[in-house]
Amino acid sequence: MFTIKDHIDVQDNHLTIGKADTTELAEKYGTPLYVTNESRIIENFSAYRKAFPDAEIYYAAKANGSLTILRLLARAGAGADVFSYGELYLALLAGIPREKILFNGNSKTDFELQKAVELGIKVSVDSRNELHTLSEFASDCGKTTQIAFRVNPDVSPKTHPKIATGLCSSKFGIPSKEVVKIYQEASELPGISPCGIHCHIGSQILETEPFTEAAQKMMDLVEKIVDIGIDLKFVDMGSGLGIPYNKAEEAPKPHDLANAILPVFREKTQEIGISPKLILEPGRYIVADTTILLTRVNTVKKAARNFVGVDAGFNLLIRPAMYESYHYVLVANKARSAPDETYTIAGPICETGDILAEDRKLPGIVKGDLIAILDAGAYGFSMASQYNGRPRCAEILVKDGDTEIIRSREDIEDLIGKQRIPARLL
Amino acid sequence: MFTIKDHIDVQDNHLTIGKADTTELAEKYGTPLYVTNESRIIENFSAYRKAFPDAEIYYAAKANGSLTILRLLARAGAGADVFSYGELYLALLAGIPREKILFNGNSKTDFELQKAVELGIKVSVDSRNELHTLSEFASDCGKTTQIAFRVNPDVSPKTHPKIATGLCSSKFGIPSKEVVKIYQEASELPGISPCGIHCHIGSQILETEPFTEAAQKMMDLVEKIVDIGIDLKFVDMGSGLGIPYNKAEEAPKPHDLANAILPVFREKTQEIGISPKLILEPGRYIVADTTILLTRVNTVKKAARNFVGVDAGFNLLIRPAMYESYHYVLVANKARSAPDETYTIAGPICETGDILAEDRKLPGIVKGDLIAILDAGAYGFSMASQYNGRPRCAEILVKDGDTEIIRSREDIEDLIGKQRIPARLL
Repeated sequence: MFTIKDHIDVQDNHLTIGKADTTELAEKYGTPLYVTNESRIIENFSAYRKAFPDAEIYYAAKANGSLTILRLLARAGAGADVFSYGELYLALLAGIPREKILFNGNSKTDFELQKAVELGIKVSVDSRNELHTLSEFASDCGKTTQIAFRVNPDVSPKTHPKIATGLCSSKFGIPSKEVVKIYQEASELPGISPCGIHCHIGSQILETEPFTEAAQKMMDLVEKIVDIGIDLKFVDMGSGLGIPYNKAEEAPKPHDLANAILPVFREKTQEIGISPKLILEPGRYIVADTTILLTRVNTVKKAARNFVGVDAGFNLLIRPAMYESYHYVLVANKARSAPDETYTIAGPICETGDILAEDRKLPGIVKGDLIAILDAGAYGFSMASQYNGRPRCAEILVKDGDTEIIRSREDIEDLIGKQRIPARLL
Repeated sequence: MFTIKDHIDVQDNHLTIGKADTTELAEKYGTPLYVTNESRIIENFSAYRKAFPDAEIYYAAKANGSLTILRLLARAGAGADVFSYGELYLALLAGIPREKILFNGNSKTDFELQKAVELGIKVSVDSRNELHTLSEFASDCGKTTQIAFRVNPDVSPKTHPKIATGLCSSKFGIPSKEVVKIYQEASELPGISPCGIHCHIGSQILETEPFTEAAQKMMDLVEKIVDIGIDLKFVDMGSGLGIPYNKAEEAPKPHDLANAILPVFREKTQEIGISPKLILEPGRYIVADTTILLTRVNTVKKAARNFVGVDAGFNLLIRPAMYESYHYVLVANKARSAPDETYTIAGPICETGDILAEDRKLPGIVKGDLIAILDAGAYGFSMASQYNGRPRCAEILVKDGDTEIIRSREDIEDLIGKQRIPARLL
């Protein structure tokens, strides 16, 4: 019998999330539908907060850039790791204080760097080229921009190669052996205050060893840059803590992460005699399991497999098609019925790879049933497209059974609004 | 020395497309920027038209759903293969006649089937379940809907597994051995006129043999269903003709495709004594090479590779990250300069997989240079997202040096417009 996790429950054989009946939600708001449980966001954030009482938690907005989620996290005391001017704008609009934002990214435009300077946002600098551009912009308008360098610690986490960001071959960061030199250079440039150091080794990491290894390498670099006179105010260790998408996976929790990196951090900072702020950048851990994607069954077909055609595909959740990711699925209106068939859940997109879940034992499925895809809160809507001419779906927030729309469903107008046909072609 | 293809040229060391200087386009419209050459669309369509003088050419709107491109093709006499109500709406709005549209798809919603019935659009039915739903809708409103069945010919094209759609394991179509039975069933249902047959074996196919094999299997099925009394009006062979993204690839042309399938089609129809219309559904071939994506260099960094950070990533062109696809790249403002370094072109997205082109010999690149990514017209903008908080870019149409915006650049408002924060959280 399937065990449903934590805040997701069953009542009268219907799946519930945050005490709301998913079949009623689908009826009321239509499908496909992303449903986020507010309380779970706060619980996840609190777990980080508690594991790292002295650190700043900068939510990685790329995981889910919903304004409401950013607002909830702002109220809970989070900062934000942003990757574009768009994310910066959303974070500020949601009420995240500008001093708790780090502007990250390997390829920022001049416009983005200008905005960071103007707004007094800390920047994680990824290249020497960027350093000089930023110095020029900052000194031109008589400002000093606080920066960290994103360093590449050359650590190999066991995760999907597309999201392993701290390998020496990755596009991110300054190679370790050049780090001291670039801090030296930065300390001599106008408009720049090199006062932080930053790394990020990847995403969906299910072991703590790579974090410890990265922390050790980072703290060795910290010692070296303090040695050359850098006044270090913050050390951003990134994050990348995975979640157990699959019941077979065991995932470390924030306190395991704390055990993996805090001793290294504390020992070294005491040894050197500095007290920089520690920053963590969780994204997936905060939001992934807070959200389900509800999708309606359009058709069931016995062919090479038992295909269940639903109304959401990789236009709305690209992880299975892009990273071969696993998501639990349930029949939301038969949540406790005994599984009696093996089904493959297929989206409506024109590609063979548009399969949301393969060969799952589920109760007998018929047209009209409602499928719930679990753990869809991270890299779900944030990567959604209008591929195949499909307007994007709505998002709702649930709290103790109450629901509110936090993003309206798009319609045909949203496919056409920006388009125009040259008059000569009419 | 790099040989630039057909309609893409160089003047004063600047790349031109449709006689427009790409550096001026980037200056005028900003980057990233999709630029489509109108004449090339017409040339590509004409090549199909000429190779298949008696067939209907139904453009596969999923490749590029731009309203202007649909309009151009409508004027040239094309029909459309659509995969959703959104694509159907766009095709009709662009002026494609409803009798030249086929509504395709493995998982259509009730709403979509209703619309097809109401508007008198032919439907390619993918399952028995869908057949019965459609029959019910059509007979309920006293209409007869013309249908084809999408059949699964079990042909293995040598292409990326995610886009090989005609394997027996794929989610698409009715298995061959059930085809006769389902036509029999359809012919006895109210509201349904089973008068077509449809297959599609995949995308980006670079050999003609799989097309011949599919045509043979299709025509064998045609014979069988005609034998049971089906009055066949059309045979839709799909398409999937590849283009040479890589200079090393040799791609068949429409006349090669015609040589591969027309003899089979003609011989069998004559043998049976029927004269159904042949339909082809090219997408990629019509649009891929008509369009380039212009992207500005933000930063250049020597790390494990020579990374060139640009302002477009897999948010705008997901093919390299998702299918490991190859696209030619050029330095648009140094188009004839001798290559002197090996560069890797990286997008600004937060993932290691966000690499547009790996290890390419190019002239020395500095910040501010303009990179052109070729053959970006198919599955480019149509798969674009706002991932990492990035508004989508503009699209322009070029004709003989004149340019017009056909899709405006999105701005921050387009990230926020559909969102709302519940009042209690303000």
